[in-house]
Amino acid sequence: MAGGNVPDIAAIQDAARRLVPVLCSLPLMESERLNSRVGGRLLVKVETLQPTGSFKIRGAWNRIAQLSPDELARGVLALSSGNHGRAVAWAARATGARRTVVLMPQDAPANKLEQTRALGAQVVAYDRRTADRGDLISRWCREEGLVYIPAFDDPHVVAGAATVAYEVAKEAAASNISLHGFAAACSGGGLIAGSALALGALSPVTEVWGVEPQGYDDTAQSLARGDRVAVQASGETICDALLSLTPGEFTFEINRRRLAGIISASDDDARRGMRAAFEEFGLVTEPSGALALGALLADRKRTEGRTFAVVLSGRNVDSDLFVRQFADLDTSTTPASFNQVEAR
Amino acid sequence: MAGGNVPDIAAIQDAARRLVPVLCSLPLMESERLNSRVGGRLLVKVETLQPTGSFKIRGAWNRIAQLSPDELARGVLALSSGNHGRAVAWAARATGARRTVVLMPQDAPANKLEQTRALGAQVVAYDRRTADRGDLISRWCREEGLVYIPAFDDPHVVAGAATVAYEVAKEAAASNISLHGFAAACSGGGLIAGSALALGALSPVTEVWGVEPQGYDDTAQSLARGDRVAVQASGETICDALLSLTPGEFTFEINRRRLAGIISASDDDARRGMRAAFEEFGLVTEPSGALALGALLADRKRTEGRTFAVVLSGRNVDSDLFVRQFADLDTSTTPASFNQVEAR
Repeated sequence: MAGGNVPDIAAIQDAARRLVPVLCSLPLMESERLNSRVGGRLLVKVETLQPTGSFKIRGAWNRIAQLSPDELARGVLALSSGNHGRAVAWAARATGARRTVVLMPQDAPANKLEQTRALGAQVVAYDRRTADRGDLISRWCREEGLVYIPAFDDPHVVAGAATVAYEVAKEAAASNISLHGFAAACSGGGLIAGSALALGALSPVTEVWGVEPQGYDDTAQSLARGDRVAVQASGETICDALLSLTPGEFTFEINRRRLAGIISASDDDARRGMRAAFEEFGLVTEPSGALALGALLADRKRTEGRTFAVVLSGRNVDSDLFVRQFADLDTSTTPASFNQVEAR
Repeated sequence: MAGGNVPDIAAIQDAARRLVPVLCSLPLMESERLNSRVGGRLLVKVETLQPTGSFKIRGAWNRIAQLSPDELARGVLALSSGNHGRAVAWAARATGARRTVVLMPQDAPANKLEQTRALGAQVVAYDRRTADRGDLISRWCREEGLVYIPAFDDPHVVAGAATVAYEVAKEAAASNISLHGFAAACSGGGLIAGSALALGALSPVTEVWGVEPQGYDDTAQSLARGDRVAVQASGETICDALLSLTPGEFTFEINRRRLAGIISASDDDARRGMRAAFEEFGLVTEPSGALALGALLADRKRTEGRTFAVVLSGRNVDSDLFVRQFADLDTSTTPASFNQVEAR
C-alpha cells in the first residue's frame, strides 16, 4: 500500500496542473494583529474554501483523476476520519466512478458523515479503537472489487498534497519573501511530507514543521526513535482529523529525512487558532485545521523576527462544537470603549 | 453632498481597474444543498474576505484613491455604523492621508470600533437616536478641515460598490449563465444602486432586489411613495449595519428607476443566512451581511426555477453575537446516524 516513487518536482507540477479546474485558491492572507502577536510575519494558506472544505481534495483528485476507465467502473474505497472520505466522494462523482464506499469511524463528526453521504457515497462505520484497518480495507477491496484510495500513504496523494506548499513557495518567491518556516498539521503525514518535498525543491532554506495534537504524537515519537512507532490512543482531543496512532510508511520515509521537527499542540492551541481565523479572516475552521496556526501563536520564541507560512487545512466542524470553543476559551471580550471621547 | 453624475459603465470599469491591487475576489460560490432548498440556483458573491471584511472597501477606495495631495494632507472624515469607517481608515492609511476621523454610533459592535482604531483612525461616538448627522459632518469638516467621504451618497462610492455586480455579471456571462435576479442588502442604498447600474449595462434582464431589515424599510416605503421618506427607528434588529432611516438622495434617484423592489427580512432571515454561510462555505458573516442570503432561502416562490446571485456583504461580527445566533435559531442537529449499516 505504500510503494511507489517519492514525488519529484515534476510530479508535483503535474498534480498542480491536474488541479487547476478544481481548486479555489486564495492568495496568502496576513493580519497585522497576528504578526504583532508572533513578533514576526505569518502568511496564512487558506485551504478551508476548497471543494469539500479541506486540502484533502488535492490528493484525492490527483489520485482519482489518474484511474483507468476499468478502475472507475469498479468503484473506489476510502478509509477516513471524514475529510478524505468526503474529498474522495466528490472526486469520484465528478469523474464518474461507479460507486464510492467510505469507511468512517463511528464517532466522526455529523457534518462529515452527512456531507459525504450527500455526495452519493455509502458510508460504513467502524470502531477506531478496535478495528483492524488493513484487514477492513483488504476485505472490502477483495469482496467488492473496489479500488482503494489511500488517505496519505501513496505517491499520488502526497504529490497532490504537495501542491499546497508548491503554491505557497511560488507566491512567496513572486513577492520576494524568504520563508524561514512552514507549519501544517500532521496525522498520517501526507500534507507535511508533500509540503517538505515541494519546499525542498523550491525553497530549501525553509524549515518544515509538523504539528500534532498531544497524545497523538506518533510522528514525533517515530522521529525520536528513527523508526515508525505506534502510540496508544491516550485521552480525548477535539482534533478529530488528527487521530493517527502510527505514521504512514511512505510518508514517514519522507518526513524522517526532511522535517525540521514536530510541534506538540493542545486543544487550547486549536481553539486559539480557530478564534484567530474567525476574528482576523472571517474563516470557519475545524480544530484540526487551525491547530498549526494556534500552536504558532503560542510559540513566540519560534516565530520572533521570522516569516512563517501556516496552513488552515480544513473547516468541517459541527456548529455546536464550533460554538463551544468560543465559550471554552477565555474570551476577555472588552466592551466597546470610547475612552471619554464624546461626539461634539 | 449628493451631487454628481450617475456612474456609467466606463466609470464602473475605471473603479474596477483602480481596485485591482486591493481586492481579494473569489469566484462565485454555489452549494447543491442551497440550490435544492431554493428550487433553483444560488450564486454567492463573497465580499467577506475583502480587506476590512466587507464590500465597503470598494467605494471607500474608489473615492480616496482620487483625492488630491492637498485633500490627503487635510485628512478624511467618515460617518459610519462601522464597516465604511473601517474601510475608509484602511484606504486613508494606504494612500497616506494625514488623519482619519470616524464618527461611529455609541452602540457599534466592539470589533468595528477596535479594528477601525487599530488602523490609526480617531473614532468619535455619536448617539444614533439623537444626533443630527448632517450637522455633525459639517462641523467636523469646517472646524478640522477634513474631507468627507460619504458612505453611499456619492458617485465615486456608488461606482466602487457597483464593481460587486460588475464582477458577478462578467463571471456569469463567461459561464453562459443568465441571471434572473440579484439580491443584496440595502441600507443607504449604495451597494444596490451600484449593482443596478452595473447590471443595467451588462445584464439588463436581471431583476435587482434590495433586502431591508423589518422596521428599517425606508427604501421600500420610499419606493411605494415615489419619494424619499424617513421612517421612525422601530424596534431592535441584529442587523447593525442596516439601520438607515432614510435613503440616500443620490442613491434613491437611481434605485427609484432601477430596482425590481425591496424584500423585507427578519432577524431570523439573518440568522438563517449566517448559518448557511457557515455550513455550506465555512464563512463567517455578520447579520447584515447574510440577510439577503437568508431572505432568499425563505422565499422559494421567488427563486424556484430561477438563477439568483446574492451578496454576502460583510463579516464584522462580535464573536459573542455570532455564537448566540446558533443558539437562537432552532438547530435541529441530528446526531450522526449510520442507519444500521455496520462495519463488516
